[in-house]
Amino acid sequence: MFKIISLLTDFGQRDPYAGVMKGVIYNICNNIQIVDLCHEINPQDVFKASWVLSSSYKYFSEDTIFVCIVDPGVGSERKKLLLKTDKYYFIAPDNGLLTGILNEQSVKKIVSIENEKYWLKEISSTFHGRDIFAPVAAHLASGINMEEFGPEIDKDSIVKLKLNLPEITGKTIIGEVVYIDQFGNLITNIPVSQLKSKKLQIKIKESLIKGLKESYNSVKPDEILTLIGSYGNLEISCNCGNCSEILDIKVGEKIFLEFLDDF
Amino acid sequence: MFKIISLLTDFGQRDPYAGVMKGVIYNICNNIQIVDLCHEINPQDVFKASWVLSSSYKYFSEDTIFVCIVDPGVGSERKKLLLKTDKYYFIAPDNGLLTGILNEQSVKKIVSIENEKYWLKEISSTFHGRDIFAPVAAHLASGINMEEFGPEIDKDSIVKLKLNLPEITGKTIIGEVVYIDQFGNLITNIPVSQLKSKKLQIKIKESLIKGLKESYNSVKPDEILTLIGSYGNLEISCNCGNCSEILDIKVGEKIFLEFLDDF
Amino acid sequence: MFKIISLLTDFGQRDPYAGVMKGVIYNICNNIQIVDLCHEINPQDVFKASWVLSSSYKYFSEDTIFVCIVDPGVGSERKKLLLKTDKYYFIAPDNGLLTGILNEQSVKKIVSIENEKYWLKEISSTFHGRDIFAPVAAHLASGINMEEFGPEIDKDSIVKLKLNLPEITGKTIIGEVVYIDQFGNLITNIPVSQLKSKKLQIKIKESLIKGLKESYNSVKPDEILTLIGSYGNLEISCNCGNCSEILDIKVGEKIFLEFLDDF
Repeated sequence: MFKIISLLTDFGQRDPYAGVMKGVIYNICNNIQIVDLCHEINPQDVFKASWVLSSSYKYFSEDTIFVCIVDPGVGSERKKLLLKTDKYYFIAPDNGLLTGILNEQSVKKIVSIENEKYWLKEISSTFHGRDIFAPVAAHLASGINMEEFGPEIDKDSIVKLKLNLPEITGKTIIGEVVYIDQFGNLITNIPVSQLKSKKLQIKIKESLIKGLKESYNSVKPDEILTLIGSYGNLEISCNCGNCSEILDIKVGEKIFLEFLDDF
Repeated sequence: MFKIISLLTDFGQRDPYAGVMKGVIYNICNNIQIVDLCHEINPQDVFKASWVLSSSYKYFSEDTIFVCIVDPGVGSERKKLLLKTDKYYFIAPDNGLLTGILNEQSVKKIVSIENEKYWLKEISSTFHGRDIFAPVAAHLASGINMEEFGPEIDKDSIVKLKLNLPEITGKTIIGEVVYIDQFGNLITNIPVSQLKSKKLQIKIKESLIKGLKESYNSVKPDEILTLIGSYGNLEISCNCGNCSEILDIKVGEKIFLEFLDDF
Repeated sequence: MFKIISLLTDFGQRDPYAGVMKGVIYNICNNIQIVDLCHEINPQDVFKASWVLSSSYKYFSEDTIFVCIVDPGVGSERKKLLLKTDKYYFIAPDNGLLTGILNEQSVKKIVSIENEKYWLKEISSTFHGRDIFAPVAAHLASGINMEEFGPEIDKDSIVKLKLNLPEITGKTIIGEVVYIDQFGNLITNIPVSQLKSKKLQIKIKESLIKGLKESYNSVKPDEILTLIGSYGNLEISCNCGNCSEILDIKVGEKIFLEFLDDF
């Protein structure tokens, strides 16, 4: 059976950490494909990892095993989770990284990874990705039952991040920038479902942007626009430019959206 | 049958965009290997993508499918191309990215990708790599006939970039730097076939460099030299140093080459 | 038979060099998996490549072929090595890159890669990774005997780097920082086997750090600590922070360790 193990970490590309995890995985299970989801999460940015994971997982095939290592608490008493939803498996430290998944997917089972039989023999206190999470993923892909890895735990006992939701009041929404990609697109926490009209204007910092456009090319080069991005959320972008740099905006910046009757 | 899908994009490594494309591909077709050609094309730099593609494709096995996404016009009316040469398939937006291929390879067929049957169900206006190009590549790798994806179009109807060719006048060639790699090597548009003699000198900015060397080690460390690089073109390099930084030279800089009878 | 070819280079991600090597490999041998160990070795930093390789190889499965290209002498007369240990194959230029392996593993055989039959037809003077090392690795993975690639050479004839070992004098050890990862952890050349007591203090630049902690979380956020890291060596780190930046320390910095009877 074809299986994918997909890796999401803050290990970056400069060190051999992701490569070594792949060595460990293929040493246990070789009829799988490893897919790098992303290794450039900012160090220890659990919030960003949660966002990236929850916006990406649904494009993968059934039974994909996501191994998610952004783990500032490595070596401490924090739990290590193996979570099953209807279609996917998620392996991660218990620090809120799976918050986005928990908000979207119905959980079938969660176990606390405790059975050392499926770990490497020597466990460091700083690299559980290599010593615990990677071998567990590989053994799971090999067909070991989920229950073998540790005791079942309750969904309500695991750590969740507090996510800021947009505040809707009459004709206004106050949202915020939750992610900025390398093109400088500002992705907000306002989903398309909350956009009842295209007649709207947005205030962010000193900028006022009117209307909701169809694509980057709906405006002239270097012009700022708003559109529905690939995450299904409101985005603020610059056609052929870097919006984040031009407007000097970082993650967390507030957005004030107002629906208009007339333009 | 073994197939490769090779990805060339400007998505960088910071975001999950390339990873999500792989998820989409393997969800449709799993008896393939995905090879990252490069994801660090400068945002929207179609010229650079065209250069990288045309200098790389011939090292891949027959029937490789190249999926090339540098797509400033995403969401606009620009066409989406599936092109077949004798040995390879190329999938790209119609913006000139395939110029280098068209200059080198005889085209067997081009179709305009229009049949939505082979796309994801929901199409964003900002990420056709995920929603259209990746699934088309995967279906093609699965054995779907090229004609299924859309109507055939004429080779002369597609967008081509105007590439600057070297100007040859008697004993001189005026060329330019077309690519700078991470080592700082300056790759020019002057192919080895135009170098009738090794007795030559090159002027670039304020520097005069004499002779054509065999390898980096033909000169002392930190010394500038010219040689035939791995692209088969004239390169200007620094032994164990970064030539681009040392000479402060960017893509587009002119090179004045002169053949000499005596040194 | 399942085989892995693992790549360690200083090619970075901006250029198509690593991607092209993969194209070459799969064009010769397709029932293998290519694993990127790391492509972000600093340009021409053979020492760092040697360290990364020797700290990573043992996590891979038997018969893995490591192709290691940090090659400032490319195109010169330096030899090209294919080395076999009990469990692994290593392919690299003869410039000291395999020093760490030679110090740890018993060598079964070394050949000098000379048989052009297994190279690409055209050999550039600047990219032997593509033209020689990649095709040799692929042919080796395909089952070609090691002896086919060239004559056997003596272990003592190949280049070795001079590695600084810790100096132990009574109750003190003078070591140094040999690697800094992207989290800013300072990895030293002092292995856990030399730490006879946890009652110790470390001086590095103007900082004095007392005791040996179990994990990052043993101290408060932003506090500096020492612990045994995932390389099995003494590390100096900052809980949730970048130790290298905070203490302004680079590779090569000396560490003065003293064992204490009382704290």
